[in-house]
Amino acid sequence: MYVEIVTIDLGARSYPIEIGGGGLSTLGERAGIGLAQALIVSNTTVGPLYAPKLRAALTQRHSHVRILELPDGEEYKTWSTLQLIFDELLKHGCDRKTVLYALGGGVIGDMTGFAAACYMRGVPFVQVPTTLLAQVDSSVGGKTAINHPLGKNMIGAFYQPQLVVCDLDTLNTLPARELAAGLAEVIKYGPIADMELFAWLEAHMDALVARERGALAHVVKRSCEIKAAVVGADEREAGLRAILNFGHTFGHAIEAGMGYGVWLHGEGVAAGMVMAAHLSQRLGLVDGSFVERLTRLIERAGLPTRGPVLDAQDNAGRYLELMRVDKKAEGGEIRFVLIDGPGKAVMRSAPDALVREVIDQCCAS
Amino acid sequence: MYVEIVTIDLGARSYPIEIGGGGLSTLGERAGIGLAQALIVSNTTVGPLYAPKLRAALTQRHSHVRILELPDGEEYKTWSTLQLIFDELLKHGCDRKTVLYALGGGVIGDMTGFAAACYMRGVPFVQVPTTLLAQVDSSVGGKTAINHPLGKNMIGAFYQPQLVVCDLDTLNTLPARELAAGLAEVIKYGPIADMELFAWLEAHMDALVARERGALAHVVKRSCEIKAAVVGADEREAGLRAILNFGHTFGHAIEAGMGYGVWLHGEGVAAGMVMAAHLSQRLGLVDGSFVERLTRLIERAGLPTRGPVLDAQDNAGRYLELMRVDKKAEGGEIRFVLIDGPGKAVMRSAPDALVREVIDQCCAS
Repeated sequence: MYVEIVTIDLGARSYPIEIGGGGLSTLGERAGIGLAQALIVSNTTVGPLYAPKLRAALTQRHSHVRILELPDGEEYKTWSTLQLIFDELLKHGCDRKTVLYALGGGVIGDMTGFAAACYMRGVPFVQVPTTLLAQVDSSVGGKTAINHPLGKNMIGAFYQPQLVVCDLDTLNTLPARELAAGLAEVIKYGPIADMELFAWLEAHMDALVARERGALAHVVKRSCEIKAAVVGADEREAGLRAILNFGHTFGHAIEAGMGYGVWLHGEGVAAGMVMAAHLSQRLGLVDGSFVERLTRLIERAGLPTRGPVLDAQDNAGRYLELMRVDKKAEGGEIRFVLIDGPGKAVMRSAPDALVREVIDQCCAS
Repeated sequence: MYVEIVTIDLGARSYPIEIGGGGLSTLGERAGIGLAQALIVSNTTVGPLYAPKLRAALTQRHSHVRILELPDGEEYKTWSTLQLIFDELLKHGCDRKTVLYALGGGVIGDMTGFAAACYMRGVPFVQVPTTLLAQVDSSVGGKTAINHPLGKNMIGAFYQPQLVVCDLDTLNTLPARELAAGLAEVIKYGPIADMELFAWLEAHMDALVARERGALAHVVKRSCEIKAAVVGADEREAGLRAILNFGHTFGHAIEAGMGYGVWLHGEGVAAGMVMAAHLSQRLGLVDGSFVERLTRLIERAGLPTRGPVLDAQDNAGRYLELMRVDKKAEGGEIRFVLIDGPGKAVMRSAPDALVREVIDQCCAS
């Protein structure tokens, strides 16, 4: 079994990310995880595929291992679904040492992590991401949250897992649309931090879409390394960490405007990155050839390069309204993550008129 | 204006507790608090008395100051009430720099603190406790939470305020029953940490019940000092901090068993301390004269010294069942805070049979 380790360096809260095949079957053997009760939180799609295997692996370690399957989808990333986790824990008298395992994609990871942060004011948890998006992004770095009807990820916590296990075997069962959504977050790391990775993606996008193991292992590892460096420098998003939201301000508006779950998070980010790139160009930060390269790569990943029309009367106005409630808007001003030359991100506000032009240009008519 | 300062020493998260008269009217002048929007969270009882005054004081500092009044009572310490805070914040586009002010008792402080911990993964907040219980205990130390139908304070966070302002003037409007409930937490500090305070209380209980300013100032300050020392040594309740739960294991069972809000928290703690003292005596840790002294002091504060009958068939069984789901029960074993000689607390489990005897002895028939 081939395993790579990337470490998130946060002092007493440091933890390893394991990347390789078969990690799920050996999870009971990890040191440093408690021996009390365990609850595997999954969903009705991933649970039947992998939860019994994970439970079998954990039974040697924990006194009791239970499985809870939540409904599947971003639209269930709500308080009432979270409540099902608390109900299950309390029904079985689970104490403060109970270990939660998040088995699934970003939604399961975000909800399980937030439940772990809040249950009895904090219990340990382990991330076992089974989607590419969760492996390269959401399971790493301790951001947990649920959605509010008025905004995505508005209620949450910074709460670090004890371990992240990226079992590449689980990507075999991932639907193509979800694989593509994960590639959006991989592509993201290029423009903001690493144009070498970007060039590598241009050369290997076909291998990735074909799920070649070596190509997937490379992008998961490289993505986690970049994310680890950013999170290690700025755990609570006081500054630098915000660059990881490249494409997300537009993307969140798309997700919220369409209704959560209609567009996948990665799809919103994909179209959002194109918009942010165009905005960067209009502000004179990058030239058109870069915007073209990015758009082409996103397209090859099977992702949307144009945003949806959210309002037939005033589409740009609707985008602006949704973006203003986003966390990046401080004092009513929208802060965009823009590209200040390929490989370097910058936080900037922009005149509304310019943003409107970009939205008009980048949305499907 | 006479103000005493007690500091909670938690490194980068340190903060002052101000104790004195008139603090509420001058709160806009404090350094170190942000200048963005502010939301005063209060309830329908305290809000009409003090929120306009606090808003007037804050208007010079913050760009907008809004007031949100929640329904009053422990039974509203729920997710659905918490949601009202998030709705208000999102409706007005409040960003990450928004400052929350908790104006009220323990319920308001716990809920506002938890809302601050979760809103956009954390915004600053200030505690302005207006009950004795909140001033001497719950507003200090960063424990925030809401209740779950299956247990009190089960969902929450450790999240420190930026400042605590104990304005003694607000105690003038406190109902006598609430004042007594606060005295329960003051009395608590004696047996677990400071028998000098205990003797002082024996000498000055009448002055406290009569709300003499000097007496109140003394107990608020001394209580905060003891709590500050304990919290500074063990912020996340890994060990020592649990001693602050003297009387609380029985007390939480009373509150939950009667239905939240029927008994005040301090009333449950009062009867719970008598039970815990009896249990300590049966385990040979203290003698009967101490139990008698404690019971007498609690009685003089106007507090219950006997627990309610929660189940006519098997009262002790019901208490045990409720206590097992409490956070202090780990691996199914109930850990009691007991008195190991007056002035010193110890964590111990006890045989069920002995606990049953104590409950039978200490409950109203």
